[in-house]
Amino acid sequence: MTHFDSAHPGSINAEQVQCVEAIAPATIANLGPGFDILGLALAEPFDRVIAERTDAPGLQITQITGDGGRLSRDPTRNTAGVSALYVLRQLGIRAGVSMIIHKGLPLASGLGSSAASAVAGAMAINALFGDQLSRLQLLDACVEGEALVSGRHADNVAPALIGGIVLVMGVTAETVYPLPTPPGLILALVTPNVAVPTAQARAVLPKQVDLHLAVQQAAAVAQVVAALYTGDIPTLARAMEADKIIEPARAHLMPGLAAVRAAAARVGGLATVISGAGPTLCTVCPSEEIAQRVVDAMNDVYKSLNLACVTRVTRPSPNGATTRIIKPVAN
Amino acid sequence: MTHFDSAHPGSINAEQVQCVEAIAPATIANLGPGFDILGLALAEPFDRVIAERTDAPGLQITQITGDGGRLSRDPTRNTAGVSALYVLRQLGIRAGVSMIIHKGLPLASGLGSSAASAVAGAMAINALFGDQLSRLQLLDACVEGEALVSGRHADNVAPALIGGIVLVMGVTAETVYPLPTPPGLILALVTPNVAVPTAQARAVLPKQVDLHLAVQQAAAVAQVVAALYTGDIPTLARAMEADKIIEPARAHLMPGLAAVRAAAARVGGLATVISGAGPTLCTVCPSEEIAQRVVDAMNDVYKSLNLACVTRVTRPSPNGATTRIIKPVAN
Repeated sequence: MTHFDSAHPGSINAEQVQCVEAIAPATIANLGPGFDILGLALAEPFDRVIAERTDAPGLQITQITGDGGRLSRDPTRNTAGVSALYVLRQLGIRAGVSMIIHKGLPLASGLGSSAASAVAGAMAINALFGDQLSRLQLLDACVEGEALVSGRHADNVAPALIGGIVLVMGVTAETVYPLPTPPGLILALVTPNVAVPTAQARAVLPKQVDLHLAVQQAAAVAQVVAALYTGDIPTLARAMEADKIIEPARAHLMPGLAAVRAAAARVGGLATVISGAGPTLCTVCPSEEIAQRVVDAMNDVYKSLNLACVTRVTRPSPNGATTRIIKPVAN
Repeated sequence: MTHFDSAHPGSINAEQVQCVEAIAPATIANLGPGFDILGLALAEPFDRVIAERTDAPGLQITQITGDGGRLSRDPTRNTAGVSALYVLRQLGIRAGVSMIIHKGLPLASGLGSSAASAVAGAMAINALFGDQLSRLQLLDACVEGEALVSGRHADNVAPALIGGIVLVMGVTAETVYPLPTPPGLILALVTPNVAVPTAQARAVLPKQVDLHLAVQQAAAVAQVVAALYTGDIPTLARAMEADKIIEPARAHLMPGLAAVRAAAARVGGLATVISGAGPTLCTVCPSEEIAQRVVDAMNDVYKSLNLACVTRVTRPSPNGATTRIIKPVAN
């Protein structure tokens, strides 16, 4: 297994950069049975962080948009701030930095919002100071940022950082294994307007499981991984729906799950799973056209439940987070 | 994922065959964390069944060698007999058949002895009557034979039947998924002379496991599968040793396990696991030369424990069971 360990492409001399933008995508953790160990990066939505050198010392978050005022501008209490501070320490940099965070991801929706911000913060600082660290060298910073709100785990930050589908055995770079992403995988997402705090979604999980269920779950994960390598999307979909441990414990927190699954299947959706800790639901689709029909069906379900929702058709992001230079010459 | 579903090659008209030989190999179930769901066919040892048409009606087992007199010659109480009877029923055949069973596998050793005989019995009958059934169509018969002594599971019979490494989600043909076998995989085996009845090895397993252990186990299985696809034997070996559920519960039944693992590692063995329900231990090796050193080390360990043992260097069998015609023309 090879690690994605190359430095960010297009790295330039640190002195040349005044202002950068980093984009980090939403992620779907678990993929059904792969609770805490599988994650997938999406092409969209994404968070953006703009980082600029300033004369004022230290790191300041000068603006946050898209969060409805819910996120802290104290860098030590913001996942992008924590990961940015971590990278500044890694690089031994004392220069002043100001950051603007544009939240493209809904909060607490099961799409890895805190992870996307953490990854964008780390990527932005690294790019601002010459891309001295490889992506996987940024993993510690991202996990640190994620830990601020969602616990110490890498199933969202790792795919947001390196893209594609990732097997996450732990929280360190050497425990992160990129898996292949089948071409043609289209995803229909729906985020109903209900709060499912990650802490609650974790609290409802059983502490122990029957051995035979654990064995079935491992078999389903094995089949997911095999189907990723063979590019067999129908088998992938069947295996993703074979979760017999996590979804049964959480289903009552996800209004519309059974109805969305049935409605999606009726119009050609292959499998519906909870994205991360929910409430976002994700349907695996064989084409854009079917995915469009699935989101229509999703909208109908939540309309009948009198619940507002946001739908989206998207696909895996092969590359994960990206950066670009906004102002190349330091003033 | 594709199923191995072609009919046995070289099939000929049923009337042309008087006597056939079928060979079915030993198998290593579990491969560490893949308890009940992963199995690997070995090039050797193997069981042989010779089946011949006779004038006497029904199925008779006329001879069994290599079993030390421990196996029944009553076809309904012998795994090869049960699977043979099942295939005779499937084919609607009333002709008389006599079978000779040459046990090449030690009994109750964790190498799939009952499965090898069940597979050889089914393959022999199918070949004797014109190979009308595909290999996977023989799976039900083999599972039926296996069930006589080892419970209703397919993690030994499936790889013995189709070869290579197999993911077994259930006991039916559509739940059997061939996985790739990495080239260059060499296995050192040692079977110490201790009895570990499968029933006892199952009885010591926990009924429930901590969720976090189940998640780690699924991650290890995922890594095994990924490493099989990438052909990364060191990663495969590391993942195989990551079983935190089954081995800890069974280790006390396996004398010499820790010592064999340490001794094998010292001479270049990459990972040591219990084969099936034991007591056979299997060390993954990167070369024949290292495997030879590993079996020497294994012998030393059991000599120091005053336990007789049998060692062997072998490799995966890509094809599983085979048949050949001994007498082509029915008399």
